Amino acid sequence: MMKNSLAGELAAEFLGTMILILFGTGVVAQVVTSADGSAGDHDSIAWAWGIGVTLGVYVAARVSGAHLNPAVTIALALFRGFEWRKVAPYALAQFLGAFVAAAIVRSVYADLISKVDPDHTIKTQGIFSTLPGNGLDGVSITTAFFDQVVGTAILVFVIFAVTTARNAAPLANLAPVVIGLLVVGIGMAWGANAGYAINPARDFGPRVLTLITGYQDALFDQNGTLYFWLPIVAPIIGAVIGGATFVHLIERYLPADEPLVAEDAK
Amino acid sequence: MMKNSLAGELAAEFLGTMILILFGTGVVAQVVTSADGSAGDHDSIAWAWGIGVTLGVYVAARVSGAHLNPAVTIALALFRGFEWRKVAPYALAQFLGAFVAAAIVRSVYADLISKVDPDHTIKTQGIFSTLPGNGLDGVSITTAFFDQVVGTAILVFVIFAVTTARNAAPLANLAPVVIGLLVVGIGMAWGANAGYAINPARDFGPRVLTLITGYQDALFDQNGTLYFWLPIVAPIIGAVIGGATFVHLIERYLPADEPLVAEDAK
Amino acid sequence: MMKNSLAGELAAEFLGTMILILFGTGVVAQVVTSADGSAGDHDSIAWAWGIGVTLGVYVAARVSGAHLNPAVTIALALFRGFEWRKVAPYALAQFLGAFVAAAIVRSVYADLISKVDPDHTIKTQGIFSTLPGNGLDGVSITTAFFDQVVGTAILVFVIFAVTTARNAAPLANLAPVVIGLLVVGIGMAWGANAGYAINPARDFGPRVLTLITGYQDALFDQNGTLYFWLPIVAPIIGAVIGGATFVHLIERYLPADEPLVAEDAK
Amino acid sequence: MMKNSLAGELAAEFLGTMILILFGTGVVAQVVTSADGSAGDHDSIAWAWGIGVTLGVYVAARVSGAHLNPAVTIALALFRGFEWRKVAPYALAQFLGAFVAAAIVRSVYADLISKVDPDHTIKTQGIFSTLPGNGLDGVSITTAFFDQVVGTAILVFVIFAVTTARNAAPLANLAPVVIGLLVVGIGMAWGANAGYAINPARDFGPRVLTLITGYQDALFDQNGTLYFWLPIVAPIIGAVIGGATFVHLIERYLPADEPLVAEDAK
Repeated sequence: MMKNSLAGELAAEFLGTMILILFGTGVVAQVVTSADGSAGDHDSIAWAWGIGVTLGVYVAARVSGAHLNPAVTIALALFRGFEWRKVAPYALAQFLGAFVAAAIVRSVYADLISKVDPDHTIKTQGIFSTLPGNGLDGVSITTAFFDQVVGTAILVFVIFAVTTARNAAPLANLAPVVIGLLVVGIGMAWGANAGYAINPARDFGPRVLTLITGYQDALFDQNGTLYFWLPIVAPIIGAVIGGATFVHLIERYLPADEPLVAEDAK
Repeated sequence: MMKNSLAGELAAEFLGTMILILFGTGVVAQVVTSADGSAGDHDSIAWAWGIGVTLGVYVAARVSGAHLNPAVTIALALFRGFEWRKVAPYALAQFLGAFVAAAIVRSVYADLISKVDPDHTIKTQGIFSTLPGNGLDGVSITTAFFDQVVGTAILVFVIFAVTTARNAAPLANLAPVVIGLLVVGIGMAWGANAGYAINPARDFGPRVLTLITGYQDALFDQNGTLYFWLPIVAPIIGAVIGGATFVHLIERYLPADEPLVAEDAK
Repeated sequence: MMKNSLAGELAAEFLGTMILILFGTGVVAQVVTSADGSAGDHDSIAWAWGIGVTLGVYVAARVSGAHLNPAVTIALALFRGFEWRKVAPYALAQFLGAFVAAAIVRSVYADLISKVDPDHTIKTQGIFSTLPGNGLDGVSITTAFFDQVVGTAILVFVIFAVTTARNAAPLANLAPVVIGLLVVGIGMAWGANAGYAINPARDFGPRVLTLITGYQDALFDQNGTLYFWLPIVAPIIGAVIGGATFVHLIERYLPADEPLVAEDAK
Repeated sequence: MMKNSLAGELAAEFLGTMILILFGTGVVAQVVTSADGSAGDHDSIAWAWGIGVTLGVYVAARVSGAHLNPAVTIALALFRGFEWRKVAPYALAQFLGAFVAAAIVRSVYADLISKVDPDHTIKTQGIFSTLPGNGLDGVSITTAFFDQVVGTAILVFVIFAVTTARNAAPLANLAPVVIGLLVVGIGMAWGANAGYAINPARDFGPRVLTLITGYQDALFDQNGTLYFWLPIVAPIIGAVIGGATFVHLIERYLPADEPLVAEDAK
């Protein structure tokens, strides 16, 4: 079937990631630029990120498999036979989708951002990319790194669990809803140390956008330490750990007489 | 089959939109007329609007296709073959459903509205229709317009993604739940600049109702600028952009050997 | 099939309503007896009532049809051929389930209730049954009555919409989840005027329990007016209106060549 | 089929419970170590525990049946023919999964815990295991015990209701989502008296972890009374009551001509 021509796959990864980031950075923009919870709070941030994931996956699932995350793409290449030659193009499409979405949020929220943070400081830069301790003191770089490894390991381990048909995964094309809940839960339980990037494209795309639109320190953390690399490297390590854990500790015990993954899934 | 006689379709659009607005303006009435979050807050507003969408779609889906929104109706006429001659009647039924629902909310909440806002100012007019910056300073009309284009483009793009059967849409008649989540997410991430009308009938129906029930300035924004046209025009533009994006960047890559839309769907 | 022997049906209605009220009055007890949102707030009340409905329906659906509400039972007798001779027994079972659940909540929360409200006043009586304006001034009895008619009409209209198979109702036995969302939405949008009883058994069962466990004024509202009858009478009227609206304005336009209700449903 | 070899079952119970506790204690860590709701509140705690349950069940359902709770395992042995010889190994795997998850949370949140509670008192010990009244005065041990019996009876009664295929349980492998909602509801309505342990492994595994990592009084409540036994004993009693209620008051009325439990379920 021709459905998997690379052009279509890249368009789908681009648009799926764009939807994810339109909701994800959009909700943080709404909360940060409004007063005292009048337009949302921590809970709405967690929910809207999860909803963005669910919807982004629905956009792209049929055409590209809806990775939306370079760490997930690498895990699928390692453990599910996704072609290595497509990893870099997928990652680029994901990065561009996140970048363009951040540009739209940056524009539409420009009035409100200028109102609450006229100097474009860390306060509103945090709308777009992550920081250790979400910009507050008390979390070391080592902890942030470890946190991102754990968070992404949980993400990929559970994604494998709920998309492996043989593991009694959700049917009726409803796995995207459960994956959205997964990200809601990560935001609620694994967001305090490093803002749950758990996705190199999600973090670096919007970070580059802010760097070229008035946030000079976008590559650094609140203490002036180079930081942009951490939400790229740690999630990849975590994704490998999460995928390996599923394959070696759950998948090997699944019944062998059914297809591992549903036919229509990538 | 006779099911699509126009009378039935208009009844379904009327009642589906009425349910949507009974929840949507109802929740804002409850929050605005109660003290300090004791009966809800931003989050409950976002959730109840989304639940209203889900339930309104279930009411009308089988009989009319559950557009509930003139911008959606126009997008379906442009991209899905919905008959143009039905566009105006559908829009009128949607407007009337929203109008009647607003009248019910206006009546049932009349005691509480008079208690917290005896002069019927912008404070409680905002229960029914939208304003730039939700009535606060800092958002220009241009930004509000752009925001409504983006918000409705997201709405229609994702609606197409989750109702196009060939795109691995949700099965088991559960797409209405996902569309509800979509609107919850838009409320959380795209509600700060212009109150996420994203639907001409949703905004104009209740606006006319307030105009004739004691809110003299209902057609204007908080600065006295004529505003009612914006949540009509901008969503239509956004809907066309969203639909076109799906058709040209996702749909063209879908496998050709299955029906695009499920047989029972409109 | 023998499954519908009346004894089983009454056991199912009893237990399904008990689960509903264990969550519903439980969550209000938790919120009212804890300080400043530390154990919940308006939003958790709305969600837990809805979850209680979803779970109560799953408990009873197969055996009794899971009415859990005398107003629903009457609407089903009027419009769906439910046997009139069973209406009174069903209502009694529902009342008893609500009464026993309230007794359990009253016991388990007795320590905390005595701590925050040693005189057993209206403050904690509101855990169990409803009041105009939720005990605050500003809502007339007439408004409370009208509110309960509207709220229950919405409830029954949407229940009919999502349980009528021919109307593209949710499949995979998932209608109870959507019905739970319906009640979440009613709590968020239609709870300010009269506490969304929308169910005579839900209100009167716990009210009688409080009357005999230390709350002498349980039959009256905060102004000393006899009130217990309102959340019984108004919901029944609303249920009839909601059911009639569905039958006459949606159902008549549904295709005639499919069963109206799924075979397994009652 | 070999899928049910004990090694695989124990791996699945270990990992499923680990996922549950990674979300459950993770969210409490996030909320307790952040200021004033800036990273969550009671509601996010309730939701993330429920999401953890849903995801843990998806991880383990196919291989082990996803008990994740010794009280559930005992109820399944009593009422569903689960082999008694596997009860102790299952409980041990569940305990170890909870213990390891708590160790990960303890490590990743070590910076933030030391920041807000340098002496490692009851304040942050409550991240990991439960206390009467959640550490506040006013709830007797007797009440806490009764509360845990009731909460676990509700848990197991509803689990039986939504996993007994013949009782119109959710299809499409979506019961784990409903079971997650069940735990969200218990957290909202049955969490005030004793912190809704409702699972001996969930409570005792993290409690032992804290005991050996700086919390000397982890086996006692805030008044110095030995407490660790209560969230072990009371849930087991509650589980038996909940299972027996379902079997004797619902299951006996179900139609006899279908399998009680779906073939693929354990």
